[in-house]
Amino acid sequence: MTAEKSVSKTFRWFAKEVNQVARSATRFVRPSAKKPGSAPGTLIPVGERRIDKSRISLIDYDAQQLQEREVSEIREVLPMKDAPTVTWINIDGLHDMDLIRQVGDLFGIHALTLEDIVNTGHRPKMEEFETYLLVVLKMLYFNEAKNHIETEQVGLVLGERFLISFQEIPGDVFVPVRERLRKGKGRIRNSDCGYLAYALIDAVVDHYFLVLEVLGEKIEDLEQELLADPTRDGLRSLYVLKRELIYFRKQVWPMRELLASLAREESAFVHPSVTVFLNDVYDHTIQVIDTLESFRDVLSGLLDVYLSTVSNRMNEVMKVLTIIATIFIPLSFIAGVYGMNFEYMPELKWRWGYPALLLILFGIFSGMLLWFRRKKWL
Amino acid sequence: MTAEKSVSKTFRWFAKEVNQVARSATRFVRPSAKKPGSAPGTLIPVGERRIDKSRISLIDYDAQQLQEREVSEIREVLPMKDAPTVTWINIDGLHDMDLIRQVGDLFGIHALTLEDIVNTGHRPKMEEFETYLLVVLKMLYFNEAKNHIETEQVGLVLGERFLISFQEIPGDVFVPVRERLRKGKGRIRNSDCGYLAYALIDAVVDHYFLVLEVLGEKIEDLEQELLADPTRDGLRSLYVLKRELIYFRKQVWPMRELLASLAREESAFVHPSVTVFLNDVYDHTIQVIDTLESFRDVLSGLLDVYLSTVSNRMNEVMKVLTIIATIFIPLSFIAGVYGMNFEYMPELKWRWGYPALLLILFGIFSGMLLWFRRKKWL
Amino acid sequence: MTAEKSVSKTFRWFAKEVNQVARSATRFVRPSAKKPGSAPGTLIPVGERRIDKSRISLIDYDAQQLQEREVSEIREVLPMKDAPTVTWINIDGLHDMDLIRQVGDLFGIHALTLEDIVNTGHRPKMEEFETYLLVVLKMLYFNEAKNHIETEQVGLVLGERFLISFQEIPGDVFVPVRERLRKGKGRIRNSDCGYLAYALIDAVVDHYFLVLEVLGEKIEDLEQELLADPTRDGLRSLYVLKRELIYFRKQVWPMRELLASLAREESAFVHPSVTVFLNDVYDHTIQVIDTLESFRDVLSGLLDVYLSTVSNRMNEVMKVLTIIATIFIPLSFIAGVYGMNFEYMPELKWRWGYPALLLILFGIFSGMLLWFRRKKWL
Amino acid sequence: MTAEKSVSKTFRWFAKEVNQVARSATRFVRPSAKKPGSAPGTLIPVGERRIDKSRISLIDYDAQQLQEREVSEIREVLPMKDAPTVTWINIDGLHDMDLIRQVGDLFGIHALTLEDIVNTGHRPKMEEFETYLLVVLKMLYFNEAKNHIETEQVGLVLGERFLISFQEIPGDVFVPVRERLRKGKGRIRNSDCGYLAYALIDAVVDHYFLVLEVLGEKIEDLEQELLADPTRDGLRSLYVLKRELIYFRKQVWPMRELLASLAREESAFVHPSVTVFLNDVYDHTIQVIDTLESFRDVLSGLLDVYLSTVSNRMNEVMKVLTIIATIFIPLSFIAGVYGMNFEYMPELKWRWGYPALLLILFGIFSGMLLWFRRKKWL
Amino acid sequence: MTAEKSVSKTFRWFAKEVNQVARSATRFVRPSAKKPGSAPGTLIPVGERRIDKSRISLIDYDAQQLQEREVSEIREVLPMKDAPTVTWINIDGLHDMDLIRQVGDLFGIHALTLEDIVNTGHRPKMEEFETYLLVVLKMLYFNEAKNHIETEQVGLVLGERFLISFQEIPGDVFVPVRERLRKGKGRIRNSDCGYLAYALIDAVVDHYFLVLEVLGEKIEDLEQELLADPTRDGLRSLYVLKRELIYFRKQVWPMRELLASLAREESAFVHPSVTVFLNDVYDHTIQVIDTLESFRDVLSGLLDVYLSTVSNRMNEVMKVLTIIATIFIPLSFIAGVYGMNFEYMPELKWRWGYPALLLILFGIFSGMLLWFRRKKWL
Repeated sequence: MTAEKSVSKTFRWFAKEVNQVARSATRFVRPSAKKPGSAPGTLIPVGERRIDKSRISLIDYDAQQLQEREVSEIREVLPMKDAPTVTWINIDGLHDMDLIRQVGDLFGIHALTLEDIVNTGHRPKMEEFETYLLVVLKMLYFNEAKNHIETEQVGLVLGERFLISFQEIPGDVFVPVRERLRKGKGRIRNSDCGYLAYALIDAVVDHYFLVLEVLGEKIEDLEQELLADPTRDGLRSLYVLKRELIYFRKQVWPMRELLASLAREESAFVHPSVTVFLNDVYDHTIQVIDTLESFRDVLSGLLDVYLSTVSNRMNEVMKVLTIIATIFIPLSFIAGVYGMNFEYMPELKWRWGYPALLLILFGIFSGMLLWFRRKKWL
Repeated sequence: MTAEKSVSKTFRWFAKEVNQVARSATRFVRPSAKKPGSAPGTLIPVGERRIDKSRISLIDYDAQQLQEREVSEIREVLPMKDAPTVTWINIDGLHDMDLIRQVGDLFGIHALTLEDIVNTGHRPKMEEFETYLLVVLKMLYFNEAKNHIETEQVGLVLGERFLISFQEIPGDVFVPVRERLRKGKGRIRNSDCGYLAYALIDAVVDHYFLVLEVLGEKIEDLEQELLADPTRDGLRSLYVLKRELIYFRKQVWPMRELLASLAREESAFVHPSVTVFLNDVYDHTIQVIDTLESFRDVLSGLLDVYLSTVSNRMNEVMKVLTIIATIFIPLSFIAGVYGMNFEYMPELKWRWGYPALLLILFGIFSGMLLWFRRKKWL
Repeated sequence: MTAEKSVSKTFRWFAKEVNQVARSATRFVRPSAKKPGSAPGTLIPVGERRIDKSRISLIDYDAQQLQEREVSEIREVLPMKDAPTVTWINIDGLHDMDLIRQVGDLFGIHALTLEDIVNTGHRPKMEEFETYLLVVLKMLYFNEAKNHIETEQVGLVLGERFLISFQEIPGDVFVPVRERLRKGKGRIRNSDCGYLAYALIDAVVDHYFLVLEVLGEKIEDLEQELLADPTRDGLRSLYVLKRELIYFRKQVWPMRELLASLAREESAFVHPSVTVFLNDVYDHTIQVIDTLESFRDVLSGLLDVYLSTVSNRMNEVMKVLTIIATIFIPLSFIAGVYGMNFEYMPELKWRWGYPALLLILFGIFSGMLLWFRRKKWL
Repeated sequence: MTAEKSVSKTFRWFAKEVNQVARSATRFVRPSAKKPGSAPGTLIPVGERRIDKSRISLIDYDAQQLQEREVSEIREVLPMKDAPTVTWINIDGLHDMDLIRQVGDLFGIHALTLEDIVNTGHRPKMEEFETYLLVVLKMLYFNEAKNHIETEQVGLVLGERFLISFQEIPGDVFVPVRERLRKGKGRIRNSDCGYLAYALIDAVVDHYFLVLEVLGEKIEDLEQELLADPTRDGLRSLYVLKRELIYFRKQVWPMRELLASLAREESAFVHPSVTVFLNDVYDHTIQVIDTLESFRDVLSGLLDVYLSTVSNRMNEVMKVLTIIATIFIPLSFIAGVYGMNFEYMPELKWRWGYPALLLILFGIFSGMLLWFRRKKWL
Repeated sequence: MTAEKSVSKTFRWFAKEVNQVARSATRFVRPSAKKPGSAPGTLIPVGERRIDKSRISLIDYDAQQLQEREVSEIREVLPMKDAPTVTWINIDGLHDMDLIRQVGDLFGIHALTLEDIVNTGHRPKMEEFETYLLVVLKMLYFNEAKNHIETEQVGLVLGERFLISFQEIPGDVFVPVRERLRKGKGRIRNSDCGYLAYALIDAVVDHYFLVLEVLGEKIEDLEQELLADPTRDGLRSLYVLKRELIYFRKQVWPMRELLASLAREESAFVHPSVTVFLNDVYDHTIQVIDTLESFRDVLSGLLDVYLSTVSNRMNEVMKVLTIIATIFIPLSFIAGVYGMNFEYMPELKWRWGYPALLLILFGIFSGMLLWFRRKKWL
């Protein structure tokens, strides 16, 4: 009955778990940005609304001074647009279409660019326009509660003297960059917008390693679990991990091209001195992808181990059954023979018939055991 | 008997289902356009005739005015061919060879081009001729009744001042484009034929995301079903989904090249200002292919889960059998021994022989249970 | 005994079938054209001699007139070699080395070229020489009797005013081209040798689609068979189909490169106006390869279905065994206990002992059935 | 007991066979040419010493005359080095480091080149130096005794007027080339060193087809064996064949690049007229690789057949067990019931009880048979 | 009971072994070099501190003289920096950030370069700066105790007249190079810094072959073990070997690009005469990667063998069970029939009933044996 209980327990467990896996494949499809066939550049909020109200924050700096404040109306930042200082406008929240459109008008941003920024299901990409450079990135973090990787889209519009960054939610990934700006340490305060863009991209890519570490630890746990005792939970974890690797790869792969072209192309918005830094980020992305590939190979090795172990176990179970049955079925037959009620069975009348038979049975029993031992089944 | 019933039910179910799968692999082969060795450019209706009579509709517009009407004879549109307005001729139905030939003669279209348009089994492609640009596309939609993806071929002939679109059936994919033209909103009324071509291609590619969404939902359903309770139906769904992904990929893959060359090449028929839009469609196609690849990887992960779970189940079945057999076969043997009819079996005469044996049997029974519990089989 | 019969029937069936599969892998290796280390250009008949005597036929035409006749000596065609008309010499049978050598001498063909033409195990290829262009093609047809794809090598030597085609056997693939020449219809009579070469290549490639259709239908049949009832025959068919796809692919793959270079290169022997036609054939080849890849993926999906179904079946068989054994082994044990011959077994003397035990046995029986039903095994 | 015997026979067979497989993976690693970190160009004999004493043979020829002799001291050939004749020096045996060093000094060969020639674990490669061209090749032959492919390294140093070939053992692969030289037939006597190099390379590559044929025949045998009756020996053969294909591929793959660069590059040592011949060898190499790939796919198909057949067999075994057990276990139970010793079992006293029960038992037996037949298990 | 013991022994074994596998996947992720978003070029010690105190050693040489000594302060070497001699500074230990920073300042090394050198989790790479060339390499050695491959990062900074090498631990890989320098033998003393860099890279790559040899031997052992007797330990070894191959490949793959660009690029720091040597190292790297690929294919073949053998074994176990059960279950049934207690069972009273039945039983037994022999199960 214990087996039954364990089975139904397993099913209950799944009934519960399955809700956590629910709707996980939808992440792979981009939320449809617009009705098929509608005009390009149509701004329609896409994806779930993650925060209530968009927030605009401004940092304006050069080597000497730095000014930082929250802005309520985008028009306020206009005077700084072409000032010789570096103007970094950060906008959290992509659902206020009026705001996005105003930004577009004020900074002369193409309708398609705005659509790319607002459509959070977009693929990472880089596109150079006449007055600015668009970079669309994916921030990744591992949601332990839902047990999967989540993405946040980050859009950067890099002009000659300004940088506008768009985030879905007010994240903390740019906090260290702000800190460095405030402290005025390092190269960042002496550099232009391109370097700032690099710093933001670098912060995003550095975050990937945190996710990799989480995945690496999960793979290690799984490795130990599956090598010690393969269970169905382990199999499910393996599947979920594999799916997350697929998802991770899908998000990071386009980053490679993006950064390669950023680092190689002679863009008017990226000073040659920044190229060496971009090359560094490019290297990091390659490293992330390499590691993902290795993880995937390791997982496929683990699956082989799992499958073989399940087969081996079945083998062991079958051996136990076969040993027991092979020993006792013939013995039972012999006992059955002497349980027959024929009137003329001389052995039954012999004085030593019973002990003799017991000896014979024991002999067969021992012989079988020896045979199994020689076959290495015992 | 229930097992038997369930088996034959399964077979009946398949007998029924199989008809739905029937003739699905033929979609992969192009309907043979012509007898092998016959002259190129031979116009022979190919594939099933999907509508009764071909229909010609005309939209002629510039920024100021728009004229829209149904046309019965293709000659009527001739005067508009070289007018400065944009002339969009849409032809539904590809079985009226006379009509196609007339169009070819009037607009100076190469015989091979006409064959490419009429042969609905053609691969998506782009080819530039002296007086026009040919684009052959595939519209995809998911036929829920037949449970598979269907294709409709769309041919675009883009001249300097006209665009002819050929569809197999009067579809609704171009309706939103027509709406935008009528409303005179957006960039479309101020742009040339190239932009109109882009708008049509964009409408086709946007449709792919709808199909992706259907597939994504089916994969999610399957994921939940297979993780909870792997059945043979689940396996069949998995196979059908995989086949549809293969089919989808086969249709979309050439679109990638096509759009890449459209966006990169300096075609006389595509104004440089349209290139940024074509790049956008190209990005979408890449995204579709990426997602298809991810789906495929997810499906292969699901198959592993399915196979392992089937193995696991077998293991559980075998364990139940082994536990029962291992416990009761030896016990039966002992009972069989004392069922023998030897005259001289002293134990049979003992006063407490029977209860003692019952105790021994119970001891063996408990010992076995304990052993299985220690082996974690219970 | 029926099982035995079915088994030996299966073996007999294989013994018979295996002869049909026999010698199938040799097709993959080219018949060794020459003793290793012997001089290049050594003409040795290769492969089986398929026809008795080589046959030479001649068609000589221009837009105005056409002359067609059988030729007994190759010298007879010499006067036409440099005439302004298009001279098409077709040679059936590649075992008459003297004839081949004479052709080589008369038309100035390189020794290596002759070796390439005669060696029927050669890879499709294109090579330009000073006075001619060599194209080696593979004709494919499906031999239903032997149940595999067979190849025939076709060599084309394209000069400025002549085209020599070499075939292993007098095939019918060029018949429609001859028809078109005779009827004087279409572009073919007004064009040069290059167009004639295109027409022949096109006829060969069009034939591939016929083979694809045969394969597609076989896959469909297999799909229905395997989904309904996976048998060992199905598995064998699957293997044979996969092998044929591998073989097909091996033959067609080099055609792709060949046609790509034909269409792209500026060859003196191919007029630019023919390029658009060659591009068309190239497209068809790509389509053939695409379809082959899709077929292969579909087959691998079918294999998964087959394997899983076999596992599922085993599961069902095991369930039946387990249910029967699990129900009756304990019951037999109880019956065995009351079959023991102890003198003091009070139950045996009870008036209602027997009916009570029957009730108990029935209770256990029902309880087991219920348990299996709850486990969904019934 | 027969099963036991067959098992231990199997083990004995393996114990014997395993020695033949022994040390097979070491072939994949190059024998370490030098202590890590030692100077490049250090000449240390590598690999097993295959012959006792190195042998130098010389052929010196032009169109008019040919001189052939064995040479004991390498200095003797010096006068011919820059003579207008073609000087071919063949050195068998790579363990006489003094000889190798002398050759290096006399012909001005770079230390690294000598190391490449002597290190028999080297990858095929081509390298052009100022005064000569180095080509390192792999000769392959199938060692039937050891049942695996063996390699011999062939080094060619091609100068303007001389060619030095280095072989590990005095092989017969160059014999036909020598024959052609002696007979003075064909192009070879009228050509330069480059053509001689081509002839040698061609002889080596032609040998690959012999190995391919051996492999092809083995695959055919295996195909017939596995389709008829899959055994564990078959599986082992499959593994060994696969490993040999991997090994073959590893050796031939670099030949492709090597010949491609030989044929394409404008080397001072290869006359343009030889290029067409090198292209031919290149084609052959591609063909070898294609065939290897096809073989590999066929083998993987065979593995699937093998695995499925093993599963199928298990299914059949299980069916036999299940049929027997399912029929007789319930019957035994009924017989057991009437073997009980209750005093009040009215059936036992009935006159027709026994025949009636026999009838019932027979009825159950027949019913079961019918049921199995309906399930198609019989 | 032996089975039980063997099972728990297995578990104990794993409990022990698992600690050795522990934390193996972390090697794949680079230790996070810096807090995400912190400034690039931030020097933070990364990875475990492997030695206590950094050690600086200096070798300064030209063709005539060589000076070698330990240095306590990096400033001491400054005078030699621009001297015409070759100055090789080797620094063991990467945890003394002050030292690293001093080196950076004295030799004008970019902050990012220093970060790359200190961050031991970096991918092999090459980067050219204005005054130096950075090469980051991975030394690999096989840790037999932990049964896995370990890496040590080696950084080379190659200036015009100096070379600085950074190692994590004072390794012995450079010892032979030092020896060659001291002995003044060979080309090395007469060459510049570029050649010294080549010698160090060559020493590192040569070490890879030692690791390959270890892996090759392990694969051979595994091959023999798995072909003779597949055990679960073998499976685990297979998994561990596969994982190590993945790890090896991940480390060596970027070396390929690195050396290719080193050998091809026209770097100011690498004299053209060194290129031929670098090409040689490049060839070795390719060979390493080729061998890794082959190993991987061989391992996957071994896994197939393992899985099939496990299946085969199960088959054998099942056959034994089936033979025993199929023979004895029907016999037991017959014995059971004559054990019934019906009063009217005429056979029981027959004089020869018992011997007759014994004969019948023996006949059934023999018939079954014959049948199994015909089925080739015995």
